[in-house]
Amino acid sequence: MRVSELSQLLGAVLEGDPSREVRNVAALDTATPEDVAFAEGERGLARALDSRAGCILVARGLSVPGHTTVAVDNPKLALIRAAAALLPAEKPRSGIHPSAVIAAGARLAADVSIGAHVVIDRSVSIGAGSSLGAGVYIGEGARVGDHCVLYPRVTVYAGARIGNSVVLHAGVVVGSDGFGYVFAEGQYHKFPQLGGVIIEDDVEVGSNTTIDRGSLGTTVIGQGTKIDNLVQIAHNVRIGRHCVIAAQTGISGSAMIGDYVVMAGQVGVGEHARIEDRAVIAGQAGVLNGKVVRKGATMWGTPARPIEEIKKQCVHLANLPALARKVRQLASMATKP
Amino acid sequence: MRVSELSQLLGAVLEGDPSREVRNVAALDTATPEDVAFAEGERGLARALDSRAGCILVARGLSVPGHTTVAVDNPKLALIRAAAALLPAEKPRSGIHPSAVIAAGARLAADVSIGAHVVIDRSVSIGAGSSLGAGVYIGEGARVGDHCVLYPRVTVYAGARIGNSVVLHAGVVVGSDGFGYVFAEGQYHKFPQLGGVIIEDDVEVGSNTTIDRGSLGTTVIGQGTKIDNLVQIAHNVRIGRHCVIAAQTGISGSAMIGDYVVMAGQVGVGEHARIEDRAVIAGQAGVLNGKVVRKGATMWGTPARPIEEIKKQCVHLANLPALARKVRQLASMATKP
Amino acid sequence: MRVSELSQLLGAVLEGDPSREVRNVAALDTATPEDVAFAEGERGLARALDSRAGCILVARGLSVPGHTTVAVDNPKLALIRAAAALLPAEKPRSGIHPSAVIAAGARLAADVSIGAHVVIDRSVSIGAGSSLGAGVYIGEGARVGDHCVLYPRVTVYAGARIGNSVVLHAGVVVGSDGFGYVFAEGQYHKFPQLGGVIIEDDVEVGSNTTIDRGSLGTTVIGQGTKIDNLVQIAHNVRIGRHCVIAAQTGISGSAMIGDYVVMAGQVGVGEHARIEDRAVIAGQAGVLNGKVVRKGATMWGTPARPIEEIKKQCVHLANLPALARKVRQLASMATKP
Repeated sequence: MRVSELSQLLGAVLEGDPSREVRNVAALDTATPEDVAFAEGERGLARALDSRAGCILVARGLSVPGHTTVAVDNPKLALIRAAAALLPAEKPRSGIHPSAVIAAGARLAADVSIGAHVVIDRSVSIGAGSSLGAGVYIGEGARVGDHCVLYPRVTVYAGARIGNSVVLHAGVVVGSDGFGYVFAEGQYHKFPQLGGVIIEDDVEVGSNTTIDRGSLGTTVIGQGTKIDNLVQIAHNVRIGRHCVIAAQTGISGSAMIGDYVVMAGQVGVGEHARIEDRAVIAGQAGVLNGKVVRKGATMWGTPARPIEEIKKQCVHLANLPALARKVRQLASMATKP
Repeated sequence: MRVSELSQLLGAVLEGDPSREVRNVAALDTATPEDVAFAEGERGLARALDSRAGCILVARGLSVPGHTTVAVDNPKLALIRAAAALLPAEKPRSGIHPSAVIAAGARLAADVSIGAHVVIDRSVSIGAGSSLGAGVYIGEGARVGDHCVLYPRVTVYAGARIGNSVVLHAGVVVGSDGFGYVFAEGQYHKFPQLGGVIIEDDVEVGSNTTIDRGSLGTTVIGQGTKIDNLVQIAHNVRIGRHCVIAAQTGISGSAMIGDYVVMAGQVGVGEHARIEDRAVIAGQAGVLNGKVVRKGATMWGTPARPIEEIKKQCVHLANLPALARKVRQLASMATKP
Repeated sequence: MRVSELSQLLGAVLEGDPSREVRNVAALDTATPEDVAFAEGERGLARALDSRAGCILVARGLSVPGHTTVAVDNPKLALIRAAAALLPAEKPRSGIHPSAVIAAGARLAADVSIGAHVVIDRSVSIGAGSSLGAGVYIGEGARVGDHCVLYPRVTVYAGARIGNSVVLHAGVVVGSDGFGYVFAEGQYHKFPQLGGVIIEDDVEVGSNTTIDRGSLGTTVIGQGTKIDNLVQIAHNVRIGRHCVIAAQTGISGSAMIGDYVVMAGQVGVGEHARIEDRAVIAGQAGVLNGKVVRKGATMWGTPARPIEEIKKQCVHLANLPALARKVRQLASMATKP
């Protein structure tokens, strides 16, 4: 694709050589003259000066001396669009591998792609254009919508509901039993884990993440939410729309997460906690059972508190030895005659 | 089932309409007239007033005006029993799927259920009534007891011993090599990981949890212990009976855990730590290497300390800015003439 | 093997009965007269007195009264060598199981061992002596070197590069998409995840660990590095040679880890952090985004700081109630007439 075509596609302002051919996207430092890269911020623009990229996406009003640039509203977003144009995702060939085991009564749309050793149980439905990688298992009565991509070894328990354009990475488990027991007579009795699990449209879930079904209620992952690897979502959790949840975070039973919430890695959220819209939880923070995090708040630490308080506390903690020394001084002065 | 029959089954006191038919269990807020629900505590009883449940399980001596109630010793436990009566777990049909690969010499009880693409290696034995979901792998010489349920994609390494009535959820790995190396001559040399792993009766293990074999000794999960998703159990760990270990907790090599221990989510337990019977470890706590947690203690924080101390410490931490201000004041008073 | 032969093999000094036959290795407390064990440190040597081991490996210059000992430079390392001599790892029989699905054009060395239900995609190459356990998936164009062991259910995404003598335990995922999105127009747009992943020689990776491919760059795990179970390695992370990373640690995007770095369990490393050679990060520590940890430093806590500081801080924290009391006393003295 010529840079002029790319620029037009992005509704952008081109500066430099419009006739260059680009074929790929790359980072500034590894880009070749056939690559499109993007530059943001002072450091990005400085690094752009030395880049061999054939075309650099920059913010409107900017350019990079000696380089062909395409100025757009959001350079990083423009790179996504450039990649989509230059490298359209290869659709797996539709068809059903002969080694797949598909129960009678399963409904598969005509153009699905079913990989080797896939197992599909009774009463399952798989929507148009969806692809199931090698060894995927779909339990009885589960539904997978249109244009989903399930990577190899995904396990979907019976009855789960998966929307459209959902991506589940390798080893993801959807719909396993929640962790609920009643202690009586010296042992733990399993509480019924009979509820559902709903994964709405446009959700992406990272490798080996686990999402439990509801016990009596339903576990819900809202539309557009993105979940990283090795995350734990317990029974009856409700996550709103367009949240981002980084790796190894764990959300305990019946927690409610609003829309546009961001959680960094290794966060823990206690049972029945409520995290309102647009809140941000910083890495390794622990939100206690039943705690409410208000709309838009940014929290850190265990127990989680507003991040400014925690940062101040860190400073005070670092000064604690000096404070103790000062108190000893004052005490010795006070007891002197 | 009529409410009168259910009441009789539970040894309960019925109040209201004994002739109602119930078919299912549900939460108070989503229950229909065909559902049994339970109500506990003030809030539960308040919510029960608005419930459409056909029958509500309550503690002895209580009732819910305008509702049919069944009064029992432990309403939540009674719900478990009601669910078992109303919705007996569907046993997978016994049989061996033709796509399963079973080595000569494996001993399978007559009524096992072996799913599609299961792989069973040499000298394995699978007990009566056990079911192996799609794609389960059982390594050479491993033993699975009676009435076990292994969900899809469980991997059991060679030589593991799994008791009776054990449930392993999807993606669980039992018996992988422990993480032990000797550093010498500029690199890490793998220490022999030749030990065993024993999972006793009535244990349940959550999705994608990993349990390593012993190095020279044996890793043991005691009878009735329940383990959540994404938990890590290292080599030579010994966990007692009837413990509960929540998601994403990690237990390091050779740690000893007593009976009836409770660990919340994301707890870390160091190597050779010893946690005595009935101790409770709160969420995200870190028990240091070699540390002993006494019988019945409740611990929190990293390094883990008695929870009352940590809670007091949190208050003092929150007051630290005020304390520092006060010390500055005193200092300025002291230095004034 | 006779103890005399073992001693000779280890270049060791034998004390006791050279004619004993040993067949196995074991821990001191469970060893039988046919086992070799090792004893290190005062406690180890004390326990050795009661051991039934046929032969005990000890440090040069030491012996155990009444026992046959073999004195070596490094007893634990010698045990590894004894185990290798006594119990040579059983090589899986080479061959390709008939249920494996291997795409045309895949290049498999002559003596590979390919288990049941393995799936190998187009243009894959598998090196000499490598073994793939049941249900392993290797995506298009991926390369696996010589003498690798991939345990059951490992998933290798398209294009990944795996060196020689690499061990991947069950459920490991290599090369899944990184977690990168651009927020625009009210939703998250997926940033291209087109980069590579390279796992160098002699790396071992624990069960259910996830390693993402680079976004535009490359994720690299350096030679000889050992990674435990349930670890998360994000996109573009570069880990040096001979590192040790314990269970449930998570390393965020574009972090750089030097050589000979040690990380305990449940550590979190932020985006773009840099951890220099031979640094040690203690359990549950959190290294903030962009933070640099200097060569050889030992860090703990969140945010991670030098461990001596954190330990002092713990003491000061424990004294905080006393300090507050003292300040109240001083204040009341100061305000007295």
